[in-house]
Amino acid sequence: MNRHAVYHISRGAYAYAIGEYTLCVRLRTAKNDCTTVKVHYLNVYNHSNNRKKVSMEKILQDEYYDIYEAQLKLEERHFKYFFELKNDKESVYYTSDGFISNGVKNENSFFFPVINDDEIYTFPKWAEGVTIYQIFVDRFNKTYEKPFINAKWNDIPKRHLFYGGDFNGIKEKLDYIHSLGVDVIYLSPIFSSVTNHKYDIEDFYSIDEMFGGEDQLQDLIKEIHNKKMRIVLDCVFNHMSCYNKIFQDVIEKGKKSLYKDWFYIKEYPISIDRCNYDTFAGCVPSMPRLKTSNPQVIDYLVGASVYWTKKLGIDGWRLDVADEVSVSLWRKFREEILKVNCEALIIGEIWNDASKWMNGDQLHTVTNYKYRKWMMEFIENKIDSSVFWQKISANNALYKTLSYNYLVNLLGSHDTKRLASVVGKNKAILALLTTLVFQGIGLIYYGDEIGLTGKDDPDNRRTMPWDKISAENIKPFELLAKLKNKYPCIKYGKLIPIVVNENILAFERSYKNKNVEVYVNFTNKDILIESRKSIFYYSFGEMIDEKTMSINRIRALSFAICIKK
Amino acid sequence: MNRHAVYHISRGAYAYAIGEYTLCVRLRTAKNDCTTVKVHYLNVYNHSNNRKKVSMEKILQDEYYDIYEAQLKLEERHFKYFFELKNDKESVYYTSDGFISNGVKNENSFFFPVINDDEIYTFPKWAEGVTIYQIFVDRFNKTYEKPFINAKWNDIPKRHLFYGGDFNGIKEKLDYIHSLGVDVIYLSPIFSSVTNHKYDIEDFYSIDEMFGGEDQLQDLIKEIHNKKMRIVLDCVFNHMSCYNKIFQDVIEKGKKSLYKDWFYIKEYPISIDRCNYDTFAGCVPSMPRLKTSNPQVIDYLVGASVYWTKKLGIDGWRLDVADEVSVSLWRKFREEILKVNCEALIIGEIWNDASKWMNGDQLHTVTNYKYRKWMMEFIENKIDSSVFWQKISANNALYKTLSYNYLVNLLGSHDTKRLASVVGKNKAILALLTTLVFQGIGLIYYGDEIGLTGKDDPDNRRTMPWDKISAENIKPFELLAKLKNKYPCIKYGKLIPIVVNENILAFERSYKNKNVEVYVNFTNKDILIESRKSIFYYSFGEMIDEKTMSINRIRALSFAICIKK
Repeated sequence: MNRHAVYHISRGAYAYAIGEYTLCVRLRTAKNDCTTVKVHYLNVYNHSNNRKKVSMEKILQDEYYDIYEAQLKLEERHFKYFFELKNDKESVYYTSDGFISNGVKNENSFFFPVINDDEIYTFPKWAEGVTIYQIFVDRFNKTYEKPFINAKWNDIPKRHLFYGGDFNGIKEKLDYIHSLGVDVIYLSPIFSSVTNHKYDIEDFYSIDEMFGGEDQLQDLIKEIHNKKMRIVLDCVFNHMSCYNKIFQDVIEKGKKSLYKDWFYIKEYPISIDRCNYDTFAGCVPSMPRLKTSNPQVIDYLVGASVYWTKKLGIDGWRLDVADEVSVSLWRKFREEILKVNCEALIIGEIWNDASKWMNGDQLHTVTNYKYRKWMMEFIENKIDSSVFWQKISANNALYKTLSYNYLVNLLGSHDTKRLASVVGKNKAILALLTTLVFQGIGLIYYGDEIGLTGKDDPDNRRTMPWDKISAENIKPFELLAKLKNKYPCIKYGKLIPIVVNENILAFERSYKNKNVEVYVNFTNKDILIESRKSIFYYSFGEMIDEKTMSINRIRALSFAICIKK
Repeated sequence: MNRHAVYHISRGAYAYAIGEYTLCVRLRTAKNDCTTVKVHYLNVYNHSNNRKKVSMEKILQDEYYDIYEAQLKLEERHFKYFFELKNDKESVYYTSDGFISNGVKNENSFFFPVINDDEIYTFPKWAEGVTIYQIFVDRFNKTYEKPFINAKWNDIPKRHLFYGGDFNGIKEKLDYIHSLGVDVIYLSPIFSSVTNHKYDIEDFYSIDEMFGGEDQLQDLIKEIHNKKMRIVLDCVFNHMSCYNKIFQDVIEKGKKSLYKDWFYIKEYPISIDRCNYDTFAGCVPSMPRLKTSNPQVIDYLVGASVYWTKKLGIDGWRLDVADEVSVSLWRKFREEILKVNCEALIIGEIWNDASKWMNGDQLHTVTNYKYRKWMMEFIENKIDSSVFWQKISANNALYKTLSYNYLVNLLGSHDTKRLASVVGKNKAILALLTTLVFQGIGLIYYGDEIGLTGKDDPDNRRTMPWDKISAENIKPFELLAKLKNKYPCIKYGKLIPIVVNENILAFERSYKNKNVEVYVNFTNKDILIESRKSIFYYSFGEMIDEKTMSINRIRALSFAICIKK
């Protein structure tokens, strides 16, 4: 047995509570090294040898490792346990004191001393497997002219152009959004700010009039809720606008300002030209970085979020630069927001390993940019499907299994090149459909559903070309939404990769003994599969059939959802 | 290269901040597999290839792995990094996207997105490498008769015997304690309770009169501080006495009690006979377990600790059953206690892997019972010295390097068999001396310094036999204390195992280019070593020489501190 590969630790994704009396534990082994892995476990205060025993299921496999998992259930909250690993050559116990061939004692166990209620890992149930639609407000839809508008609707974006999108414009398009199967609308920041993106907030306590102001927003939210959708707002705690009164006070009063410890100031007087203070992203003088470990700053920012959560009745937050905001702020944020709305969803913008923030005390979930990375590499033929699954597995291994249905999978955002500009329109739609049936929350960046193009910021923030959108664009999304309602496994099911060949992406979603299979062919050649009954078939930019039909090949540039015959 | 063995994650003991601009990172490899390991690193917002590069130092080695460590320093708080591993056969980069042979890009890096102030890992500096003396108050020293005393001072303890030890008794013996080189006195619980051990508190807001009450305690603390020692009190948040008014209220009022959610109640009415509520240690009806995730309970318990920290001016807390108290309580506790005394030391009672509680937001340190386990196995010849060091390394690997000088190493407590009863008096003293020069905080359980015996609880809580203690008992500890003052490396130095032979325990303590070597021979045979100059030599229960002398053997049952000639 490859002992070097075996890993367990009684915390993080390797041991966590999912109920008062249920502990989820993992063990890592070398890939394909073990034939069976079991856990032996017992109440900490039971000093007998009457241990319970459960087989572990192999849930992940990457390039080097297998990950096994099991749920341990006791009538008490106190767990001790060790593992039994077997392969054709040997059988050995893995304990907190290392490998033991025989004669394991209770004292050698790993300990999870207790499950306290504040450590039970939970999510707002409604958010499981939903679809989110991200709207960049200035660019989505405009219902009236405004004095500050300095661009025509179809102009290519430049950094300082304002197009005049507004809340009423979004309200007008709610039926369109809803028809895409969207469950949650997430708006780019809407708090007062002089920029078009508003990621530099000037007043955390006011809704920007450029977008229509608070009344229009309230009205929009009401209508979103009427249509049984939810709304998530975007907030930025990492930095603020240099025009924010709080920063202006420090510019003005220097060391005497009550707010001097709200920032990282290198010297006085503060100079925007010299950028002698910490900012967002290295040096962006207009965005001074906030000292989010300062309790006053925490109270101020969390206070504003609580205020809006209550007043607007929103369903959650998307939090910018979440991995640079202090741990103390996130803990307080989660505590206070969930007091106001115990079902609020907390999404952090994190591009890399986010496991540090997903332990149940800070964020619920994160923008899973690693999904984008590997999907792009697969579509662009840089990796084959087996490597794709290894990479997805390695990423998932960082997180607790319960979170997989909540990871926000995205193929683009206001911070990346547009999907269609990277892979072309046909493949873009295939990839987007894939994302909506992948395990997790699927995110559609407005316009990606019609293959809107755009290079890096600001080009990735083009306006919606409403005149060019037809029913044909919406149809696949509409049908997919219906299918998701009919087959809960597409929303809630676990994902099991299917090996067809290296060019095809295929997987099963399985939930309560029901399952569907998804096949995606990004290549220009048809690919044979075992004979299946398709229930959704999209090919070369067209819905081919929404009824069931028998297939044994996935045509070039096609996407199919199938069931076994 | 053994790729399965390579491990890094950008959190926990593998990546943590030790200053505003300093990140400590670790990498694990297979044992003796690499010849050099380096880290390449850069500010997150620097998109060039001008990476800094630093060699990692091998700091730990256990049965299977080497652990390498390095400190990364930037002028900004944002880190990205990857590793370069070399051996005779290959050179490879280890990144967040796995192994890459060449062409590593910045995007493949591991990220530590920012160092916020609340994440910088710190300790109260004064506590580094100190010696703690644990006193079980009822059994230490009695200065006057009391009506509740039901045992003669020299009686063998039974569960319900009271001996009458008091605060004045401790005060009377402060010179004795001080002469042992003790820096910190830790008292078993002193809050009102009907038991002799008081681990079941009846009133968190009152000092027990049995021990002399609050005035005597204040007086004792003043005197401890006068003698330049510190005091740590013991508190129990996991459970309370069933006689506590709060629990009595629930017994009386049942579901109508305002305190019903302070406990885990299985049915009403509560019955002490049926034990229909959760308790300490499975089923101890007199100790109902508190629901320490309930914010009201947290406020109450933390409130009491803050009250006493302020009022008594104590220097820290030892916290009972720390691994069953909620994370929320510990975070609040640390925050509030450090507001009152930013130098307070927070020690948790944890017997197993305590890494979950030692991330800088909860406990400073823990009772390192694993040290006891492996030391006992070594002394009893169940493992040899190389296995001892592997086990110590494997345990240390769980913790951040900065904590090693603070781990509370102990060889016995009120919860274990007495040291001398396990290994005999001669070896007990050798082991205790070893503990006091081992890396970490050394704990002396009162009486262990004279080889006091005792089996399991309650026998391990015998009274101090003051009539049998002579200057000879104190001498080695007294001399050792002087030596520790003269050689700061014994207090602050890192520990490097020395390989002599399998029967001898030998290690170097090294600090700022000064070092000493420690040799301990628990066997009945002399053991040869390379020629050294001893500066402390204790053999067969006697101080042999406090002056320097040349030695080339460690006699049977001997302990020596040496310097190179």
